[in-house]
Amino acid sequence: MRLFSYLDKNNQKRVGVLKAAGSQEFVDLAATDATLPKSLLELIATPGAMERAKKVSQSATAVTQSLKDVRFIPLIDRPSKIVCLGLNYADHAAEGGHARPEYPSFFMRGPSSMVGHLEPMIRPKASDKFDFEAELAFVVGKAGRHLTAENALDHIAGYSVFNDGSLRDYQRKSTQWTIGKNFDATGAFGPWLVTPDELPPGADGLRIQSRLNGQVMQDANTKSFLWGVVETLVLITECMTLEPGDVVITGTPAGVGYARKPPVFMKQGDTIEVEIEGVGLLSNPVVDEK
Amino acid sequence: MRLFSYLDKNNQKRVGVLKAAGSQEFVDLAATDATLPKSLLELIATPGAMERAKKVSQSATAVTQSLKDVRFIPLIDRPSKIVCLGLNYADHAAEGGHARPEYPSFFMRGPSSMVGHLEPMIRPKASDKFDFEAELAFVVGKAGRHLTAENALDHIAGYSVFNDGSLRDYQRKSTQWTIGKNFDATGAFGPWLVTPDELPPGADGLRIQSRLNGQVMQDANTKSFLWGVVETLVLITECMTLEPGDVVITGTPAGVGYARKPPVFMKQGDTIEVEIEGVGLLSNPVVDEK
Repeated sequence: MRLFSYLDKNNQKRVGVLKAAGSQEFVDLAATDATLPKSLLELIATPGAMERAKKVSQSATAVTQSLKDVRFIPLIDRPSKIVCLGLNYADHAAEGGHARPEYPSFFMRGPSSMVGHLEPMIRPKASDKFDFEAELAFVVGKAGRHLTAENALDHIAGYSVFNDGSLRDYQRKSTQWTIGKNFDATGAFGPWLVTPDELPPGADGLRIQSRLNGQVMQDANTKSFLWGVVETLVLITECMTLEPGDVVITGTPAGVGYARKPPVFMKQGDTIEVEIEGVGLLSNPVVDEK
Repeated sequence: MRLFSYLDKNNQKRVGVLKAAGSQEFVDLAATDATLPKSLLELIATPGAMERAKKVSQSATAVTQSLKDVRFIPLIDRPSKIVCLGLNYADHAAEGGHARPEYPSFFMRGPSSMVGHLEPMIRPKASDKFDFEAELAFVVGKAGRHLTAENALDHIAGYSVFNDGSLRDYQRKSTQWTIGKNFDATGAFGPWLVTPDELPPGADGLRIQSRLNGQVMQDANTKSFLWGVVETLVLITECMTLEPGDVVITGTPAGVGYARKPPVFMKQGDTIEVEIEGVGLLSNPVVDEK
């Protein structure tokens, strides 16, 4: 199942279920069954609701609409936490001059930093060092602390695509990267949540690419993670409870703009795409802050 | 006005208004006027609600209760963002071996890391390097981006006290401090939100202390900020929109446990207090994770 978050014509938050991978049609969950939660976070957090959504979306009376009429919003627009890994591919650590790390670099993004699929990613007035980062995201389905290798994957509601857009000069104004990762509307998240049954365990072995105006910039595979999805869940929940709807983004491979010679940054008029095999294609125009 | 967030006897979230500074009695806002929002974040975010709360709490028919019957929760328990400054007092930067910084070190905490006044701060199984950090917090009252020195303070709903509890070994497992700042129930926030009319502009010139089992560990004054409240608002909103209910914590002065010789860390049975002149006294027992 592929679920997404969108605004309908009255700017109401809704959840859609894609008819099939690659389809341009989707089931409007609220129109099909008004008793289902209206936000994807609530749908994930409500026991039994995902199963009901699946059943309802396959029923003969499902209300279908076209993707071209929706406005995507961030897949989970108000998560309690967005936990981000830095340097989770050895090649990206190396291109930034970092040693192969012994523990992940964790930081957080806030909801104000996100945009949905096809919405503009905003290059702020303050910086022209706006860089892309292709990342696999996963969304937590049920609360957990001290997860183990055996039970970690049971806590995942699904996988998606994230572009962890970064202002490189602000990221390095101090030792802490957070500020460079939190400019308004710089991180894209979507288009859909793909449930785990559609993918290999832990989303292992999937090709991940970014393309700037059609040119391949990053091209790697999730099998190259230093910390895979299971290990990441174990490490994070050693420290904190992950709650339903919490988002984890898993780091980016080599090929980002700032490490290129000469460096490449995103600018007004660009289109940046991140694609993960079997998960989805996230595409966003780049627009200057007004 | 001093407002706080608590759970009533039915575990319902409520907002109370202290009768006066130092009083043990408060007005139960929901019992006095059922149309007022039931959470402090909603109260702050709803236009006119703070003024109504003030009027209602001073009325002859206000329903009063005793503080001893409440269970405090984090002042704002589900903010969209908790933005934290590191190294905002020159003396604390120096004790950690950091040069006087040219730009603040920003990081974020998540809601799962917080507890309310008088609730246990939890020393996790994973670490015995649990340290305190006395900090002034402020809560954003209305959304803003690109604030200026002239309008920044208009965006503050009030001030409070935060204990930015930190696991020092995890804080330094990578270059990014975030994981050491996000263990469950390690950051205390409260007891109350003090509205700006009760304090000097920008909460300037206030004594700030931490005391471990009654012994003074940190003793400083907010006049020693490298970046005051106004400058902090300007710097953060150059990058991101601060939304109603967002929390900013402003860094800690010298005297933290890890920089002492020998180091001092919090352990089961300790009581840690953070007090800011005119703002409040935040007190928490320390308990080992079960």
